[in-house]
Amino acid sequence: MNLENVSANKSFGGWHKQYSHQSKSLGCAMQFAIYLPPQASESNPVPVLYWLSGLTCTDENFMQKAGAHKMAAELGVAIVAPDTSPRGDDVANDDAYDLGQGAGFYINATQAPWDKHYRMYDYINDELPELIKQTFPVSDKWAISGHSMGGHGAIMMALRSPGKYTSVSAFSPIVNPVKSPWGEKAFTAYLGTDKALWKEYDSTELLKKSDVKLPLLIDQGLSDNFLAEQLKPQNFVAVATEKDYPLTYREHEGYDHSYYFISSFIEDHLEFHSKHLSS
Amino acid sequence: MNLENVSANKSFGGWHKQYSHQSKSLGCAMQFAIYLPPQASESNPVPVLYWLSGLTCTDENFMQKAGAHKMAAELGVAIVAPDTSPRGDDVANDDAYDLGQGAGFYINATQAPWDKHYRMYDYINDELPELIKQTFPVSDKWAISGHSMGGHGAIMMALRSPGKYTSVSAFSPIVNPVKSPWGEKAFTAYLGTDKALWKEYDSTELLKKSDVKLPLLIDQGLSDNFLAEQLKPQNFVAVATEKDYPLTYREHEGYDHSYYFISSFIEDHLEFHSKHLSS
Repeated sequence: MNLENVSANKSFGGWHKQYSHQSKSLGCAMQFAIYLPPQASESNPVPVLYWLSGLTCTDENFMQKAGAHKMAAELGVAIVAPDTSPRGDDVANDDAYDLGQGAGFYINATQAPWDKHYRMYDYINDELPELIKQTFPVSDKWAISGHSMGGHGAIMMALRSPGKYTSVSAFSPIVNPVKSPWGEKAFTAYLGTDKALWKEYDSTELLKKSDVKLPLLIDQGLSDNFLAEQLKPQNFVAVATEKDYPLTYREHEGYDHSYYFISSFIEDHLEFHSKHLSS
Repeated sequence: MNLENVSANKSFGGWHKQYSHQSKSLGCAMQFAIYLPPQASESNPVPVLYWLSGLTCTDENFMQKAGAHKMAAELGVAIVAPDTSPRGDDVANDDAYDLGQGAGFYINATQAPWDKHYRMYDYINDELPELIKQTFPVSDKWAISGHSMGGHGAIMMALRSPGKYTSVSAFSPIVNPVKSPWGEKAFTAYLGTDKALWKEYDSTELLKKSDVKLPLLIDQGLSDNFLAEQLKPQNFVAVATEKDYPLTYREHEGYDHSYYFISSFIEDHLEFHSKHLSS
């Protein structure tokens, strides 16, 4: 296993560690972070929450700013935070913050030059969990969550793989990327103009076809600058309501798109997932 | 009042806000951050914890990484996080991370070129609290805390101004800068070679002369890379023990110098200060 330990910090009795490895799916070196709660050991494997970050983020934003370690340590849940795209000088990029490196959108690109490295769907769905399972004292109970572009990634991946995750949650997710300027720009570049393919990565479209009922929690700030134009939670809520889907959708007066919003409610998400991970 | 609001984020029911203002003591524009808990109002002024950050930090590091807002909101304590030095193109600087901008050491410089702007002692001791008092719904109960260079600043300032703060605490403080390479370098540059002047800004030396007993909490990680060479807590603890000073000094196995250490124990510090702020 080509896994290099980059850093280690004790945190709330457990350990925050960063690792670098050569990714087969992405064809480049990738870094990820893991929080291992104090309960984790070979004789006591712990469940895992995968956290997918938003545009411009790396593995560091969530670990440094979300304030999640305290509750993860209390509940005995590991957290894995991957990067948001392939990286490096050989990897296609764009000057904009919402395309290229830092903006992988958790999909498999089909269009040049992106198709060479941008296979974040395969990385998050297959390669990374396999690596985590082989390397760390974790159980086969997994949940998934994320923020903004990562909220899109979390819900989309959970809906595409019924049975893989016990529960899914998101903060301010891009739930309907085919109708969002961020999604339209990225999907056109990565997937081309065939909108049938776009829909395979769109949570609202996937929910229409879904016949499993996965516990789902979404938190949305009402002072979020991206709410009306980019996020469009009402499109997702409408489908969920029609299908009687087990969605808890909460709106929060005054909160914005930042990590101050995430940190204010992350403990609710950890408790939500822990309940399902241990049942 | 020349105060410009730079940002505002709702956090745990309260508000994190950044402000910019023209500082008289420092002769440049300065930014600071304040966390106002939900209890704060004109009819209910709240006590204030001043937080002094370490080398290279701005007002942002603590607010983003310490995970302090939750407990501050529970206890009803405001937190003020200033920058760590004067800033700007007109302000003397050095390429090293431990001298010049980001490394003010909370002292009044006497040596050129530093004496023109580097008056962080006056800024933190007088100008900033006056501005806070006039602008925000805060009471006249104040406590002070900090990390590393900011731990030096917090203890040093509290010892120099008996009665100003109800309590003082620090994470990994540089408690004896006159015997630390960081302190020796900065004090030589800012204060010159007269070591009698250095001692006026050295917590261990100040404690020897102090005749007030201020509640004092220090947390130190035992895997802190700077412990032996730069921090030297044992020098301070020895004087405190000799004087029967009300110091609680705690050592933590495995913890380092990072914000993961601070976040693991910040709630203890907030509860410690809240007890004294409300008594």
